Amino acid sequence: MHLNQMFNLRIEELMNAGRELHAQGWVPATSGNFSARVDERTIAITVSGRHKGRLNPQDIMCIDYQGQSLDGKKPSAETALHTQIYSHFPKANVVLHPHSPAATAISRRLHGRLILENYELLKALSGIKTHEARVGIPIFQNDQNIPRLAEEVAAYIKEYPDLKGYLIAGHGFYTWGETIEDALRHVEALEFLFEQELLSLRISHP
Amino acid sequence: MHLNQMFNLRIEELMNAGRELHAQGWVPATSGNFSARVDERTIAITVSGRHKGRLNPQDIMCIDYQGQSLDGKKPSAETALHTQIYSHFPKANVVLHPHSPAATAISRRLHGRLILENYELLKALSGIKTHEARVGIPIFQNDQNIPRLAEEVAAYIKEYPDLKGYLIAGHGFYTWGETIEDALRHVEALEFLFEQELLSLRISHP
Amino acid sequence: MHLNQMFNLRIEELMNAGRELHAQGWVPATSGNFSARVDERTIAITVSGRHKGRLNPQDIMCIDYQGQSLDGKKPSAETALHTQIYSHFPKANVVLHPHSPAATAISRRLHGRLILENYELLKALSGIKTHEARVGIPIFQNDQNIPRLAEEVAAYIKEYPDLKGYLIAGHGFYTWGETIEDALRHVEALEFLFEQELLSLRISHP
Amino acid sequence: MHLNQMFNLRIEELMNAGRELHAQGWVPATSGNFSARVDERTIAITVSGRHKGRLNPQDIMCIDYQGQSLDGKKPSAETALHTQIYSHFPKANVVLHPHSPAATAISRRLHGRLILENYELLKALSGIKTHEARVGIPIFQNDQNIPRLAEEVAAYIKEYPDLKGYLIAGHGFYTWGETIEDALRHVEALEFLFEQELLSLRISHP
Repeated sequence: MHLNQMFNLRIEELMNAGRELHAQGWVPATSGNFSARVDERTIAITVSGRHKGRLNPQDIMCIDYQGQSLDGKKPSAETALHTQIYSHFPKANVVLHPHSPAATAISRRLHGRLILENYELLKALSGIKTHEARVGIPIFQNDQNIPRLAEEVAAYIKEYPDLKGYLIAGHGFYTWGETIEDALRHVEALEFLFEQELLSLRISHP
Repeated sequence: MHLNQMFNLRIEELMNAGRELHAQGWVPATSGNFSARVDERTIAITVSGRHKGRLNPQDIMCIDYQGQSLDGKKPSAETALHTQIYSHFPKANVVLHPHSPAATAISRRLHGRLILENYELLKALSGIKTHEARVGIPIFQNDQNIPRLAEEVAAYIKEYPDLKGYLIAGHGFYTWGETIEDALRHVEALEFLFEQELLSLRISHP
Repeated sequence: MHLNQMFNLRIEELMNAGRELHAQGWVPATSGNFSARVDERTIAITVSGRHKGRLNPQDIMCIDYQGQSLDGKKPSAETALHTQIYSHFPKANVVLHPHSPAATAISRRLHGRLILENYELLKALSGIKTHEARVGIPIFQNDQNIPRLAEEVAAYIKEYPDLKGYLIAGHGFYTWGETIEDALRHVEALEFLFEQELLSLRISHP
Repeated sequence: MHLNQMFNLRIEELMNAGRELHAQGWVPATSGNFSARVDERTIAITVSGRHKGRLNPQDIMCIDYQGQSLDGKKPSAETALHTQIYSHFPKANVVLHPHSPAATAISRRLHGRLILENYELLKALSGIKTHEARVGIPIFQNDQNIPRLAEEVAAYIKEYPDLKGYLIAGHGFYTWGETIEDALRHVEALEFLFEQELLSLRISHP
């Protein structure tokens, strides 16, 4: 497929994803950002500061795998977190960073690592075949120094190479997939599971 | 009605049900599965692993009453739970398995059997004429061994033949009806009641 | 306006109200019922057992002010609660009975009378001019004997003739207005306030 | 731009904002009110008592910067709170006052001043560049005497001139922006943050 065709397809996929996630309240205000591989030299990514529920084609730009703008636009401040995922996970073609309420709440309440277990819905995460799995979702401290945050993520991936997503405290979560459908499925599954964990906290902890 | 016509009708009913349930957040990611009788030899059922909010006609396949694929596609892993319901309840023509948040949360918190009482909405369940009814909803442990899980369900039905639906821990619930409208009404009523029970837990239990 | 024209207008108003209330989750399954004055001899009311989110014109029927069917259809089991409101409140032209989650939860948790105060939104209730008002919403025990329930409501109205709405335990609430807009405004305001009261309970009562 | 053109643009912006906010449940019943600068002598503002989710062009009127009606219609009772914002914040061109559930609940529970910190979403508020900011949102007592309430707000702004929005107890919140998009972004961000604060209270405070 020609680069332009592929870029146009990615634009449409990310615009639709934004509308869908915003309708759920998962990218409030200008929070969140999305990206997708276009070819071996180009990534499509949302421009910094745009409203994800009302994306226009011009709100999605091109960067290279070092995170440099290829079209003069300014990419999301968190671009390095996206390029890192493409570099560590060759099969990841789409990265979504929602800023959803349950993710945000649980990321502020817990520290270190959230363990998800005894959920049938774990099977919605690529590679998980049984609800008897234990899936760890790390919670990183929020940091405006993105390279430093990326280093923490890298260290974690080195230890746990089958990572499915991660939380940043007070700042939503990152997840990814081979296709836009896979990435959206991960978003739906993880936010649902974070909400369940939050309900458990609210019931169990006076 | 000709088999093909009936199959096409069931396809449309299940696709619409999927869209409606997904819009409520009741079949997140690829969770849940649906089926409906087509004729005395054929059941329509959702193909394994499809997103229930975006079902296409090819995501719905045909099986026989032993759960064997009739068209080469792979049915839901939980097919035996569907065929079991058709075998025990001759009037059930549609089976819906949503994976909704309140059902999931209550199924993880409680054990054994949830008793629903003092709800006017119990009258939305087929055969219930007064809010003074007590309706028991069993909670089965989740199990990837579906035949074993089906046996537990069978034992329960033997004891309580007027079963209206059941929960599986961390895995949503099953309910059914004579028509798609009946089955959807049961889904709406039960998820509403599970949410009420969950609110009670959150208020009463420190 | 000719009776038929007025009846058709009421049909449209109640169908739209049903769609709107169902979209919010306020008339799950076949719960709730609605009515509106057509003329001095006729009331339009929802037929028993219909789904309020998918009302067709034939789901709305005519009764007289004694609650007798004028067209052979079977009206809602709670018809006497509607006719009572028209008889006590000459200005009420529309009665809505939603079965919403916060109303249901608060009606099961509290007894006697809920006092709403210090809410700006009280001003959305007809006749209330300041948030310094105290608005009492009685909670009646649920009863399948509707004439007996209607008597309890009548006794309450005699004592508190400025009633704006009432709860029935485990069974949603009734409210009314001069126009469909007024009645819907009361529904929106009351369900919002019930949700606020529920949040207070959940925060304050361990 | 000609006054009429600008007024028509503002009408459209405020009608769309109303539909969007109502769809989220943030302006229930006839609560809330909105305004926008038209030119140096004219402000567009919602007429008193209209439903914000179903605004028609005639539900938006013109006032001057003293809050006097320019077209004979009756403006919102809280007009003085709008004109005050335009007078204190020269860059504010749009003022939105939603009456959303989390804002209302938190405003009834807390007193004085809510401090928002450790939220990435603070960066959605104009002028905030890091989640390490601390943003104070004052909570004023509700008052039907709007000039008196405006004086309290004025005293607060004098002390904290970088105010981004404020709560009124049991009465939602006010926020503003340079454009309708900015003001809506502030609404989305603040209601999200109020909901997070409410969740914290429900988890931490028995």
